[in-house]
Amino acid sequence: MIRIDLQIDLTYEIDGAGADFVFNIHAAQTPNQRVSTENLTLNQPISPRMYTAPGTGNRYLQLHAAPGALSLGYSAQIDLMHHLADPVKIAEVPVCDMPPEVIGYIYPSRYCQSDLLIKLANNEFGKLTQGYSRVQAIQDWVKRHVTFALNSSNTNTSAIDTLIQRVGVCRDFAHLMIALCRALNIPARFATGTDYGADPTLGPPDFQAYVEVYLGYRWYIFDPSGTGIPMGFVRFGTGRDAADVSIATVFGAVRTHAAVIRAVAVENSANGMVLPYFCDEALSTDSSTMPAASEFTQSSEQPLLW
Amino acid sequence: MIRIDLQIDLTYEIDGAGADFVFNIHAAQTPNQRVSTENLTLNQPISPRMYTAPGTGNRYLQLHAAPGALSLGYSAQIDLMHHLADPVKIAEVPVCDMPPEVIGYIYPSRYCQSDLLIKLANNEFGKLTQGYSRVQAIQDWVKRHVTFALNSSNTNTSAIDTLIQRVGVCRDFAHLMIALCRALNIPARFATGTDYGADPTLGPPDFQAYVEVYLGYRWYIFDPSGTGIPMGFVRFGTGRDAADVSIATVFGAVRTHAAVIRAVAVENSANGMVLPYFCDEALSTDSSTMPAASEFTQSSEQPLLW
Amino acid sequence: MIRIDLQIDLTYEIDGAGADFVFNIHAAQTPNQRVSTENLTLNQPISPRMYTAPGTGNRYLQLHAAPGALSLGYSAQIDLMHHLADPVKIAEVPVCDMPPEVIGYIYPSRYCQSDLLIKLANNEFGKLTQGYSRVQAIQDWVKRHVTFALNSSNTNTSAIDTLIQRVGVCRDFAHLMIALCRALNIPARFATGTDYGADPTLGPPDFQAYVEVYLGYRWYIFDPSGTGIPMGFVRFGTGRDAADVSIATVFGAVRTHAAVIRAVAVENSANGMVLPYFCDEALSTDSSTMPAASEFTQSSEQPLLW
Amino acid sequence: MIRIDLQIDLTYEIDGAGADFVFNIHAAQTPNQRVSTENLTLNQPISPRMYTAPGTGNRYLQLHAAPGALSLGYSAQIDLMHHLADPVKIAEVPVCDMPPEVIGYIYPSRYCQSDLLIKLANNEFGKLTQGYSRVQAIQDWVKRHVTFALNSSNTNTSAIDTLIQRVGVCRDFAHLMIALCRALNIPARFATGTDYGADPTLGPPDFQAYVEVYLGYRWYIFDPSGTGIPMGFVRFGTGRDAADVSIATVFGAVRTHAAVIRAVAVENSANGMVLPYFCDEALSTDSSTMPAASEFTQSSEQPLLW
Repeated sequence: MIRIDLQIDLTYEIDGAGADFVFNIHAAQTPNQRVSTENLTLNQPISPRMYTAPGTGNRYLQLHAAPGALSLGYSAQIDLMHHLADPVKIAEVPVCDMPPEVIGYIYPSRYCQSDLLIKLANNEFGKLTQGYSRVQAIQDWVKRHVTFALNSSNTNTSAIDTLIQRVGVCRDFAHLMIALCRALNIPARFATGTDYGADPTLGPPDFQAYVEVYLGYRWYIFDPSGTGIPMGFVRFGTGRDAADVSIATVFGAVRTHAAVIRAVAVENSANGMVLPYFCDEALSTDSSTMPAASEFTQSSEQPLLW
Repeated sequence: MIRIDLQIDLTYEIDGAGADFVFNIHAAQTPNQRVSTENLTLNQPISPRMYTAPGTGNRYLQLHAAPGALSLGYSAQIDLMHHLADPVKIAEVPVCDMPPEVIGYIYPSRYCQSDLLIKLANNEFGKLTQGYSRVQAIQDWVKRHVTFALNSSNTNTSAIDTLIQRVGVCRDFAHLMIALCRALNIPARFATGTDYGADPTLGPPDFQAYVEVYLGYRWYIFDPSGTGIPMGFVRFGTGRDAADVSIATVFGAVRTHAAVIRAVAVENSANGMVLPYFCDEALSTDSSTMPAASEFTQSSEQPLLW
Repeated sequence: MIRIDLQIDLTYEIDGAGADFVFNIHAAQTPNQRVSTENLTLNQPISPRMYTAPGTGNRYLQLHAAPGALSLGYSAQIDLMHHLADPVKIAEVPVCDMPPEVIGYIYPSRYCQSDLLIKLANNEFGKLTQGYSRVQAIQDWVKRHVTFALNSSNTNTSAIDTLIQRVGVCRDFAHLMIALCRALNIPARFATGTDYGADPTLGPPDFQAYVEVYLGYRWYIFDPSGTGIPMGFVRFGTGRDAADVSIATVFGAVRTHAAVIRAVAVENSANGMVLPYFCDEALSTDSSTMPAASEFTQSSEQPLLW
Repeated sequence: MIRIDLQIDLTYEIDGAGADFVFNIHAAQTPNQRVSTENLTLNQPISPRMYTAPGTGNRYLQLHAAPGALSLGYSAQIDLMHHLADPVKIAEVPVCDMPPEVIGYIYPSRYCQSDLLIKLANNEFGKLTQGYSRVQAIQDWVKRHVTFALNSSNTNTSAIDTLIQRVGVCRDFAHLMIALCRALNIPARFATGTDYGADPTLGPPDFQAYVEVYLGYRWYIFDPSGTGIPMGFVRFGTGRDAADVSIATVFGAVRTHAAVIRAVAVENSANGMVLPYFCDEALSTDSSTMPAASEFTQSSEQPLLW
């Protein structure tokens, strides 16, 4: 088990008549990612709303802030019980066996224009053996073809742009890898959270964008920018791409200060808490969604009427 | 009340090893669009799956078809109880009052790149009085700047493409209008269904793509391509854009024959059934989602802890 | 007559192993733009090359600079004898009457993708009366739809980008206007030189990008960004777009300091030198290229053999 | 020596009020490509104009045709004296040694957006040994990443599009190869002419688009689509890209029939005429443009005044 003590501090200066914010900075609560304690502080006497999206479990914090400084602090203790699996045994899921709520993740989205990359993806990866190793090949291809450079892209940058420009940050690596997976009908989604173990020369601890791919009836973690140790990532949200799970969406005239993030792993051999490490196994913080044999199917003997 | 007798016939030739399909051709079941009788027939002894998406109520039919001909027939009787409202009284909803499940519809999507159109939308519509009339101005702008022409676009065509090329089909008019609304933080979604009352010179009865905009806490119908009588539209699905609610998504080597669609309105003055007509009122088949005063808010006197 | 005293100072810091430069900062020598005195100074003992392009008369300075500082000073006295004409009398030139060397300026180029704007240009301007006034309508449209903002674009920005983003600098206004003219088969070219009379709040005196349009068998000046007094512009080069007539193309690792530019008009009523002023007449620094009746044509009685 | 007997027949139906045409179908006259006999026939009593562009030697035929059928026949006998060279001995030319009229061919153009591909080209080819073999590596990369398919692109398709879509015709292979060369500061230009020796399954004899790259002070032929035997190509024109050297540019409402092309090589061992064959040597139909030592340079002892 991995335990992370998380502390996030966000600061803004709000001009004019106030501003609206939608944050997605709460650790997701899943069977494998338990949020034991959690605290949110705001320097303004605001009445925020919390909303948990039904499909993804993403937790959104929505608030209207008055002019002046806005400080937001979020702290939590998160326990991660990773599912580890032998990559060799993880197969791709045929379209006809995909749960319906997963199928949306093979469709193109704003920053992952998979519909434009079908030939490219099939040329590069179409003849590879299907399964986890093919997705690893896609991840390696993205790592090999894109250079990591801070401030080399912006919020409009899409997978197509990154494919041409060959440079980006973690968000761009994720978008390109997702687009290539979807072009092969492999469901892939964008995940956000906090980084762990990144090279300090890349900057102070930061938010992290990475990828989850649906293989073997489960969402597995991939980190195409390769900047951290995935076992230490705390997940905030998952979505089609960055448009769905922006850390902070701001409406109004606002100056943003750099986020201050602290993610510390707690080691305690007595109760099995270890530090995150690079592992060769496939990694997931999701439950299996393998359908029971009886589920979702109707015999054609029954009248086809709904 | 409007009653539509609907009949849809789809035919495919499947080569090779069979093919997977996801259809979204079932009429949506909403408080204002009641599906009284419904029948689905398939010429192959297939066990399909039905899936109703939790957020949107879209109904998806997923099946694996064997090689050879696939014929699918869907018939239904649909009763539409439209909400009509005086456009002058319909206001835009401030971001801080938007229900959380609506906020996603101001974000950009694959074919509606609103993030690239913020200056354009503000230049063109930023100074107009907010409300239903501003959305009408957007719709009129799209109608004025884009020419309708069959086969002038393809499934990759996006709002940005249409903005430049100035030509398209109903799908393209919808994408551009949606992108412009979202660029102004007005929630807008893509709707699909069947057309009604279109000029026969534009071709035989067809599927229809149109727009729903969230105004006055309700989704109102707009038809930017102006090809039909919106009061007669039967709605299948709503989504971010065409990627979410494709009529048919096909996986495999398949030849597609033209769909045959029949949508007939039933007139019966005895029980108040009238024929669809062009009306000046704002039109909706959705319920109000105005939040109760107590909902979604927490007093800041309470500790800010989740 | 307008007399401009021009002084340009460029400074660079060259790292590593030296760098190559191609400059286009010499005032063009044309019948209507006479360069009476001219001086170039370089702080490095370099042997540069001068090249005058046959088609355009653009003068390029090509040099290889050693590591360290490179300073380049160019001063010249330029006399401008403008051709002024009544806009009402200036017609568009039919394609069949265009001189062959002009026809290339109706083709698309890197930053002026006129081939993508044919429908848009015809929708907006296709029904206007042909002639100088139609080109003025295009210029006004660009001014009305694009906002001037320093640092809002970069060297990759094209007419299509500006059309969507609705913001730019003089280079972007010029590219969009050129693309729209070409989409209507009106030859248009990109001109560079020095600004005159610009609002000091837009920054210190600078280089200027503007447009020349071929009308009435002559290239007329247009200034779609509207930042200066065109009668005071000194022309360096003309080309398809910014790719052809970059002020300075740099090969190597170089830091660039801001250019220092001084363009002063000399007034002398004794010999007819006036200060540049805004005029209602159409303005050109080019000779007429109206072909003589006999030119370019071969009687079809002659055998069609070359 | 290669001798080609060439016959081209073009047919059009002109609607309405007549149409203007600019053709570039005359074989270029160069020291190494001699046009011995040449004949042009037109079915309409038209007075066309011929224009030879000063920089490139391209010959343009400009005419205005009346409504009805337009038939144009061009026949010529062309002798090709190829310059063959050992690829190992052909170096890239440093920017500072490039003739000024060549430098324009490292700038981006409409369909060859090299300015967007600088990182990609340097990642893929930046570490290879400079020279002919590096350009061959670029050609091989394009061949490997793009699939040839008729009707897979259109006249708006650019190098960036082909890079993403991975499919195209000879024009698209050429544009992508040119863009990659220019991104490395290697001059490259678009060449048009007639194909020779293409696989008949790819269709009847056709026009051909290919590439010339400036290496070792000479333009060498490359055929990235690999559809023919380059030694048999007859060159019409060279330019920045397809915008410069369209086979036929048409202004007006015109229906175009398929061109009929016949290019037959004449064998005559008595006077050294052989049939075109695939050769390992580098191939050029251009003269060397190596500058004499004294040319283009001015001693810096001389006053730097022009």
